[in-house]
Amino acid sequence: MSFETVRLAGDAVELLDQRRLPEDERYLRLETAEEVARAIEEMAVRGAPAIGVTAAFGVAVELARLPDAELNEEALERTVERLRGTRPTAVNLAWALERMSRALRAEFSAGAPPARVRARSRELAQRICEQDRATCRAIGEAGAELVSRSARVLTHCNAGALATAGYGTALGVVRSASRRGKIRTVLACETRPFLQGARLTAWELARDGIPVTLITDSMGGALMARGEVDLAIVGADRIAANGDVANKIGTYSLAVLAREHGIPFYVAAPLSTVDPDTPSGDMIPIEQRASEEVLTLAGRRIAPPGVEALHPAFDVTPARYVSAIVTERGVIEPPLAEGLARQLSEAGLEAGEGT
Amino acid sequence: MSFETVRLAGDAVELLDQRRLPEDERYLRLETAEEVARAIEEMAVRGAPAIGVTAAFGVAVELARLPDAELNEEALERTVERLRGTRPTAVNLAWALERMSRALRAEFSAGAPPARVRARSRELAQRICEQDRATCRAIGEAGAELVSRSARVLTHCNAGALATAGYGTALGVVRSASRRGKIRTVLACETRPFLQGARLTAWELARDGIPVTLITDSMGGALMARGEVDLAIVGADRIAANGDVANKIGTYSLAVLAREHGIPFYVAAPLSTVDPDTPSGDMIPIEQRASEEVLTLAGRRIAPPGVEALHPAFDVTPARYVSAIVTERGVIEPPLAEGLARQLSEAGLEAGEGT
Repeated sequence: MSFETVRLAGDAVELLDQRRLPEDERYLRLETAEEVARAIEEMAVRGAPAIGVTAAFGVAVELARLPDAELNEEALERTVERLRGTRPTAVNLAWALERMSRALRAEFSAGAPPARVRARSRELAQRICEQDRATCRAIGEAGAELVSRSARVLTHCNAGALATAGYGTALGVVRSASRRGKIRTVLACETRPFLQGARLTAWELARDGIPVTLITDSMGGALMARGEVDLAIVGADRIAANGDVANKIGTYSLAVLAREHGIPFYVAAPLSTVDPDTPSGDMIPIEQRASEEVLTLAGRRIAPPGVEALHPAFDVTPARYVSAIVTERGVIEPPLAEGLARQLSEAGLEAGEGT
Repeated sequence: MSFETVRLAGDAVELLDQRRLPEDERYLRLETAEEVARAIEEMAVRGAPAIGVTAAFGVAVELARLPDAELNEEALERTVERLRGTRPTAVNLAWALERMSRALRAEFSAGAPPARVRARSRELAQRICEQDRATCRAIGEAGAELVSRSARVLTHCNAGALATAGYGTALGVVRSASRRGKIRTVLACETRPFLQGARLTAWELARDGIPVTLITDSMGGALMARGEVDLAIVGADRIAANGDVANKIGTYSLAVLAREHGIPFYVAAPLSTVDPDTPSGDMIPIEQRASEEVLTLAGRRIAPPGVEALHPAFDVTPARYVSAIVTERGVIEPPLAEGLARQLSEAGLEAGEGT
């Protein structure tokens, strides 16, 4: 990978500013949890695993800059709460913060000195980052088995290296399948309003030399009807215990269309995306973002004054439309609820644990 | 209506330049068939009925400017061919030009003097324009019967006053239903890549005081799943004899989604959109436009260099997804092929007549 989505550099988080891609490859240097929180809110970084890793780094840089006298459990909780409140749908964010919080509270309880707490926070955040990369590679390898030869793969939004600490989930599967010579092309939905498909997925695949064809979000159905899509694969922001999947707005439409055409529809995500405490998709909070983001494009207003817009950032795809979920522990076929429960249990993660 | 989509003014065609909406309301003044043809190709005017009317005016202005010595059947045919070649999918274009061509050839055959040919061309083009407006009003009145009270109506692209000589087809139904107090809101899909929904549908409805809410093309399915859409209605660029409908790319996806959610999916179009010589949708030529139009947005490139894009401008919705077709002769319910044949026969238009 010739770029890094997010990294810890000294006492700062360095973040590839995804709002500026593909034109500009510029890294932001963030030195406080507040700066990190704003970068997440403003989508300088996005993608459920990536924001989890970024938030963990955010805790580490905040603890690094606090004077010894202020480094206490209360400051930790304030920092974690600020970061947790940035985006409501992705569960990896809460998951990473909970891991940080639990480990550091244990340090405080044990009376650890400030230097020890800071070292532990850096070390754990780094570990979360490295684990995310390893998880993506495992997802990629498991998912590549599902990809047919010479496949034309439809994807939505960006579930790539840019949405994770590296390699990607849905695009991790694409990368692993590509190494096996299986990818004819990736059909990338541009993904309005933020254009993650056009700006990010196209950018990172082109950079890796994987053939990519851009389409508007409205073209998926017509291409399926013409027999030009072999499979669809997307990431997830949260997976409910029953297998319902919250992901970027537009995912649900593609899943319905895939089923209508007998095309497999796969979801690739780390187990940390699965929320055993959310029984079904209708319980997943869907972030409503500013309508201004739909009404403008590249800084230019596209609709006349006085017109309103809706902007749900995500939708929920019921489990019945999902052909399989690929995690770092392998492929889960329907019934998804059972497979998810089994993998969670094997991983030692169960409902009510606040994982 | 406080604007005119297209009009004949002296010896010129005046055209509201739709590429500049909603910011600028500027009329182009076109004095030759070549200028009119380019305006159609470059989408200064679009919408199947509107380009039919515009092309008829284009013939009239060309004949008006030709010197007497050059005003002959050959010049007429050259003019008609140039205009017919501008866009392949909409059949109204060929239909309007055929009407002009047939009537004027008859004048030439009868040895009519140049002044008479010119007068006839203006008069017939004006008639095609006025008939289009009357047709839209009839479609609106017939279709309004299908609209439930307090309806939330999803539409795609712009099948409005701007796509016709006035009033609109799908939006004609909305206008007539609105006069009866039936419209809660119109959910307008923005319709990438040209954003006809955001720029044109939102503009003309806001101007008429009809509530309109803008959504991205990816939101339709999620809104249907949440019970927030009561019916969908779109226009058509060509309807095959069996009821298959070619319309703006994205229409097919919405039709599949509507059926999945038990939501009626209506098509509103003049009978001149029905092509009895095209047995089914797979015979309809689908215009492939420049990929540059997908790769750029508001003049700014949205994808990295080297990335390709697809740009089919239309898709085909099989008749089985269409709940009813509304024409100026009333509502046609399935089986659509029979209803279409009956209305065509009543109107004296049948297959092979080159209507």
